[in-house]
Amino acid sequence: MTEQKLSEPPPAGLGPREPTAPVAPVAPRPGAVVTLRPLGVHEARLDPGGLLGRWQRRNAEDTIPHCVDNLHAHGNIANLRAAAGESGDAFTGMWFADSDVHKTLEGAAWELASSPGDASLRSFVDDTTALLARAQGPDGYLNSYFTVAAPDERWRRPEWSHELYCAGHLVQAAVAAARTGVRPDLAAVARRFADLLVERFGPGGAEEVCGHPEIETALAELYRLTGHRPYLDLARRFLDLRGRGLLGPGRFGPAYYQDHVPVREAAEVTGHAVRQLYLLAGMVDVGVETGDHTLLDAAERLWEDAVHRRTYVTGAHGSRHRDEAYGDPYELPPDRAYAETCAAIASFQWNWRLLLATGRARYADEMERALYNAVAVAVSLDGRRFFYSNPLQSRTGHTGSGEEAQARRLPWYSCACCPPNIARLMASLHGYLATAAGDGLQIHLYAAGSVTAEVAGSAVRVDVRTEYPWQGRIELTVTSEADTPWTLALRVPDWCDAYAVRIGGGPVTAPARDGYVRLTRVWAPGTTVVLDLEMPVRRVTAHPRVDAVRGCVALARGPLVYCLEQADLPPGTVLEDVRLDPAVAVEAGRREDLPDFPVVLTAGGRLAEPGASLYAAAPARERHGAPLTLTAVPYFLWGNRSEGPMRVWIPVAATG
Amino acid sequence: MTEQKLSEPPPAGLGPREPTAPVAPVAPRPGAVVTLRPLGVHEARLDPGGLLGRWQRRNAEDTIPHCVDNLHAHGNIANLRAAAGESGDAFTGMWFADSDVHKTLEGAAWELASSPGDASLRSFVDDTTALLARAQGPDGYLNSYFTVAAPDERWRRPEWSHELYCAGHLVQAAVAAARTGVRPDLAAVARRFADLLVERFGPGGAEEVCGHPEIETALAELYRLTGHRPYLDLARRFLDLRGRGLLGPGRFGPAYYQDHVPVREAAEVTGHAVRQLYLLAGMVDVGVETGDHTLLDAAERLWEDAVHRRTYVTGAHGSRHRDEAYGDPYELPPDRAYAETCAAIASFQWNWRLLLATGRARYADEMERALYNAVAVAVSLDGRRFFYSNPLQSRTGHTGSGEEAQARRLPWYSCACCPPNIARLMASLHGYLATAAGDGLQIHLYAAGSVTAEVAGSAVRVDVRTEYPWQGRIELTVTSEADTPWTLALRVPDWCDAYAVRIGGGPVTAPARDGYVRLTRVWAPGTTVVLDLEMPVRRVTAHPRVDAVRGCVALARGPLVYCLEQADLPPGTVLEDVRLDPAVAVEAGRREDLPDFPVVLTAGGRLAEPGASLYAAAPARERHGAPLTLTAVPYFLWGNRSEGPMRVWIPVAATG
Repeated sequence: MTEQKLSEPPPAGLGPREPTAPVAPVAPRPGAVVTLRPLGVHEARLDPGGLLGRWQRRNAEDTIPHCVDNLHAHGNIANLRAAAGESGDAFTGMWFADSDVHKTLEGAAWELASSPGDASLRSFVDDTTALLARAQGPDGYLNSYFTVAAPDERWRRPEWSHELYCAGHLVQAAVAAARTGVRPDLAAVARRFADLLVERFGPGGAEEVCGHPEIETALAELYRLTGHRPYLDLARRFLDLRGRGLLGPGRFGPAYYQDHVPVREAAEVTGHAVRQLYLLAGMVDVGVETGDHTLLDAAERLWEDAVHRRTYVTGAHGSRHRDEAYGDPYELPPDRAYAETCAAIASFQWNWRLLLATGRARYADEMERALYNAVAVAVSLDGRRFFYSNPLQSRTGHTGSGEEAQARRLPWYSCACCPPNIARLMASLHGYLATAAGDGLQIHLYAAGSVTAEVAGSAVRVDVRTEYPWQGRIELTVTSEADTPWTLALRVPDWCDAYAVRIGGGPVTAPARDGYVRLTRVWAPGTTVVLDLEMPVRRVTAHPRVDAVRGCVALARGPLVYCLEQADLPPGTVLEDVRLDPAVAVEAGRREDLPDFPVVLTAGGRLAEPGASLYAAAPARERHGAPLTLTAVPYFLWGNRSEGPMRVWIPVAATG
Repeated sequence: MTEQKLSEPPPAGLGPREPTAPVAPVAPRPGAVVTLRPLGVHEARLDPGGLLGRWQRRNAEDTIPHCVDNLHAHGNIANLRAAAGESGDAFTGMWFADSDVHKTLEGAAWELASSPGDASLRSFVDDTTALLARAQGPDGYLNSYFTVAAPDERWRRPEWSHELYCAGHLVQAAVAAARTGVRPDLAAVARRFADLLVERFGPGGAEEVCGHPEIETALAELYRLTGHRPYLDLARRFLDLRGRGLLGPGRFGPAYYQDHVPVREAAEVTGHAVRQLYLLAGMVDVGVETGDHTLLDAAERLWEDAVHRRTYVTGAHGSRHRDEAYGDPYELPPDRAYAETCAAIASFQWNWRLLLATGRARYADEMERALYNAVAVAVSLDGRRFFYSNPLQSRTGHTGSGEEAQARRLPWYSCACCPPNIARLMASLHGYLATAAGDGLQIHLYAAGSVTAEVAGSAVRVDVRTEYPWQGRIELTVTSEADTPWTLALRVPDWCDAYAVRIGGGPVTAPARDGYVRLTRVWAPGTTVVLDLEMPVRRVTAHPRVDAVRGCVALARGPLVYCLEQADLPPGTVLEDVRLDPAVAVEAGRREDLPDFPVVLTAGGRLAEPGASLYAAAPARERHGAPLTLTAVPYFLWGNRSEGPMRVWIPVAATG
C-alpha cells in the first residue's frame, strides 16, 4: 500500500508531483497500456467564478453536508453502528444502504484534499472510518445489512445481494482516502475485505459474480493503489466468469445483469444501464492494467452501440423505467426516458477511462455532453435536491407512482444512490480536466481555473480564463520552464464546426486533427493562447430510426442542450401544442428577467390547434394559430422555477 | 338464489325466454336504470364460418382445454387440493392463482351452455366445483394461498392480497354457472364466501377495500342473480370507501389503486389499467342497480378521459410497463405500449355495461375496436399461445427481460391472468352482439349468425349473413310474428362515413341518428335488410399532442387496424427505415400467397436513408431511396408467421 501522510495539498502551482502515482480518481499504474495520463486533483484548480467551479463549491457547501445529514437521518450510519454491535437497532433502508455511506465518504475524501480545513467534513471522515473499522467482522466482511438483518444469507444471493457492489464502493472510498492522504488507514479496512474476497472468489474459489458490477473497477483501482496483483486478478476473474448465465434465469434473465454473453463477445449494451456502465469501466481498467486488448476492444465496440443507438441527446443512458434498462436500438422516448443520474455519472467515468486508454476525442466529447446535461440536470440550483431519473420531457398533467417518476427534484430517495454519486464526482471534477502524455499537455474540458503538469521533465502551468459553456472563447496563459518544444493539445468539441486560434495575439492556422488542435513549440513563459469556438445555436435532429422525436428538433448551443419550460409560455398555453417555426431564426442572449440562465434562446413558435378526437382519418397537416415567441433555457436548469411541463424535443411546424 | 336446473339449452330459435333473467354475462335486474337489455347467450348464435364464430370455436376446442391443462400443470388445481386438506403440497405460483381457476371455470360454464355435450369440459366443471366446495373453510373463506401458505396473513394486506379480487372471480364463475344452469350449486359456494364478506366488510365492519378491484362488479352480479340486497350494498360500500387513501402510501401511492380520490370525483383514469377498468365496470353495475346517477356520470367522464386521451388506436389501454399503468394524457408510445390483454377485455366489458346503461353507440364502437384489435391480437392462430402485452410496434433487435416483453405469444405466463380471461370472453361472445329495448332490437356487433328476442310481446329473429369485418356488406333476414311496428336498430360504426340500406331489395333513405340506423315498420316475415358499410382504407392520424407517432399514419379498414411486418419486406430491409409514400393509393384485396389474411393492404413505400450519426445539426429533411411496395396485414394476426419486427404507425415520407 502506498503510504501517504495527511498534509496540506500543494498549491495549484508549480510544485513537485509524483508522476507515477497521481492523486486522481483513476490512476493507471506506470506499466498500464494507456495513451494519456491523468494529472491528479492537486494539479488542477477550478475557479469558483466559473460554472464548474461553482458546481464544485456548491457540492462542498451544500451537497456533501446534505448527504451526511441524510445518512444520519435515514439510518445508514445507525446500520453500521448496529453491525459494530454498538446498538440493537434493526436494519433500516435498502439492503445496499452502506454504499451510500461509502460514496459520500469518497466524495468527502476528494473534497478534503482541496479543503483540508473543513472540520465538519474531517470529523465525518474520521468518525465514519473508525465506525467502518469497528463494523468489520474479524474475517474482513463488512456489510451492515447481512451482518444485522440476514446473517444466514451472506453470499447466498449473488443476483440481488449487492454485497460485492457495496464492497466495491468501500474500496473506492478507501482508494480516494489513501491517494489524497486524507485517511490512509481506511485502505486497511478495504484490504481486509478485499483479501477475504480473493480468498473466497479467487482462483479455486467460488465461481460467482455480483448482480451489480462495481467490484471490478474497484479492485483494479485497489491494485493500482497497492500493487497487490491478486486484486487485479480477481477483477479479471469476475469479468471472465460473465456470460455463463450464473445470474438469472428468472424474471430478469441474464442479459439484465450482462451475464448472457462473455464480456469480450458482447455486441450490444443490455439490461440495467448502471450495471452495464460500471461493468464497462471495470473492463477498461482491467484491460489497460493487464494489457488485454480484447477487453478494450469490446468496450469500444459497446461504446459504439451505446452512443450511436441508445444514448439521449443529453448524454443520458437508459430508456426504460422497467428494469432501469437500455431499450432497443433507437428506442429513445423523451418522456419515459429513465436516464438515471447514476448512469450518466457512470458514463462520464467510463468515458474518462476510454479517453486515458486511447486518447480519442470522442470520449471527451461524451464526457462533456453527459456532464453539462445528463449529470448537471440532476442537481437543483441549491445543491440539495436531486433527480433520480432525468427525462427529456415532462408532460402537462404528468403523474407517476414512484419517487423517480416525479417531475421534481427530491431531497433524498429511498434508493439514494444518486445524490452521493454526484457528491463524489463533483468533488473530484478538477481531476478530469486535462491529461499529460509524452509530448505534452491535453486539455479536454474547458473551465476557468488552472492545470499544472510535468512535461518533458519540466513543470508547466496553464491558466484558463473562459465563460465556457456560455461563451466559446477560451484564453489560456502558458507558463513553462521547458526549453524544448512540447505540445499543448486543445480539444475542439464535436459540436463545433468553426473556431479560431490566436497565439500571443496573432492568428495561427491550426487544423484540428482527431478532435484536437495541437500547438507545438518552445513555450515562452506567459504565452497567451486564445481558442475561439464558434457557438451558434444548433437545431439538432435525430436519426430517422428514432421514432419518438420524429418531426422535432432539439435546440443546442455549445455543449448545452436547451428546453422549453411551461414557466416561459403565455398563461393557459399547453406546452404540447407548441411548435417551432422553422422560418424564424433562433437567437442566443442574456435576459435580465432570467438571471439564473446566463444565456437563453429566443425562437419563433406557433400553436397547433388541437384536434377534437384522439384519432381521425384526416389530412395529416396540422393547423396552426397565431405566432408566439418562444424562450428556451438550458436543460440542466429546468425545474428550478416550477414543476411545470418541459420538453427538449420541439415539434417543427410544417411549412410550405 | 334463482334456481335453475341443468338442462339442454333451448335451440337458438324462436323458443320462449324469461325476459327478466337473461342468461348473459351482465344481467341487470328488472328495476335497473338501463336503456338496453341484454339478450343472453341462448338468444344468439355465431355461425362458425364467420370470424367471431371461428374465434369462439377455437376457444372451445383449443383455448379452454389449453387453460385447463395449464391449471393442472402449473399447480393451480393442486393448490386448491392442498387448501382442501387433501395433500400436503406447498403452494405454488402467484398468490392470486385461484383467480385463473375461477376465470377458466366461468369460461367453461359459458361454453357448456352452448356445447352441453362436451364431456371433458363437463368433467372439469364438475370436479372443480366440488373441489372449490371442499377447499372452502367452514366460515366460507376460500383462497388457497392464504389457507395453505399464509394463514396468519389473511385479510391483513389489502393492497396486495388480491383476496377480494379472487373472491370476485369466484363469484363471477358462480354467476355464470348458475345463469347457464351448468352448475347452479357453485353459487352456494360463492354465496357462503360473499356472506362472510358482508359480515366482515359490511356496515359496521372493516373499512377496507381491495387493492385490485373486481369484487365490486362481481357482488353486483351476485345481487342480480340472487336478489339479495346486502351484496349490492357491499359493492356500493367498497366504491364509497375509495378515495381515502386506505391503499398506499408506499412505493405505488394511492392513485395506482384508484384510491386517491372518491370515485365520483375522479376526473382522470390513473394507475394500474386493469384495476381502473374493473373498478369502472363495478361503478356502472352499482350505478344502474341503485339508480345512483353520480356513479354513471363519473364512469362516462372517465371514459372521455380514457378514450380521448389515453387509448391506443387498437383500443388498448395502459401505456407503461412500470406499474402496468395508464400514462399521462397523450402518452401513447407504440413500442412500449403495455396494452395488457386483460385491460382490453376489461374495456370491452366496461363498455358493454355503459352501452346497456345509456344506449350510446360510442360504447359499442369502443367494444368493436378493442375486440378486433387489442383483444384479438392476444391469441395465436392456433388458440394456444397468448400475448400478455400488446404493443403496436416491435423494433428490429427487440429484447426485454420479462415474459411480457417478448415479441411473441407464449403458451402460459407465471402471472397467467390473460389466457383464462380470453377464454371467458370468447365463450360468451355471442352474448354481446345485440340488445333489446322497448321499441325493438339493436344490433351492435356484426357477425354471421342469428339473434332472437321478444319484441313488443312477440318473438322475432334476425339472421345475419356477412363477411364482416373483411367486407362491409351485412345481409339480415328478419322473422317476426309481431303485427305492430318495431324498430330494428343497426349500428353504423364511427369509422364509417358512407353506407347504404336496402330493404326487400329496394334502397331506403335511412339517416343514422346517434350512431344507429333505425328501421321502424311492421316486419313481414322474411324481410331482407342489407346494410352496406363502405369500407375504404383509412389513413389514421393521431392528435397533435401524441408525440410518439408524429408524422405517422396507421392504416385501417373497417374496424381493423393494419400493420407492417418484417415477413413482408424484401430481405435485408430494416423496418424502421420504411416510409409510406403518401402519393400512392393504398389498395385492399386478397392475396393468394397470404391465405391467413383474408384482406391485405398494398401501399407505396420508400426507404429512408439512415444517417451516420444518432444526432446531427442538419436539415431535418430525410432522404429516400428507391420506391418499394408495402404489404400491410391485420394487426391482430401479426406474429403468426415469425417473431420479426412489426409496426402499426408508419412514418410518412415527406413530400413536396
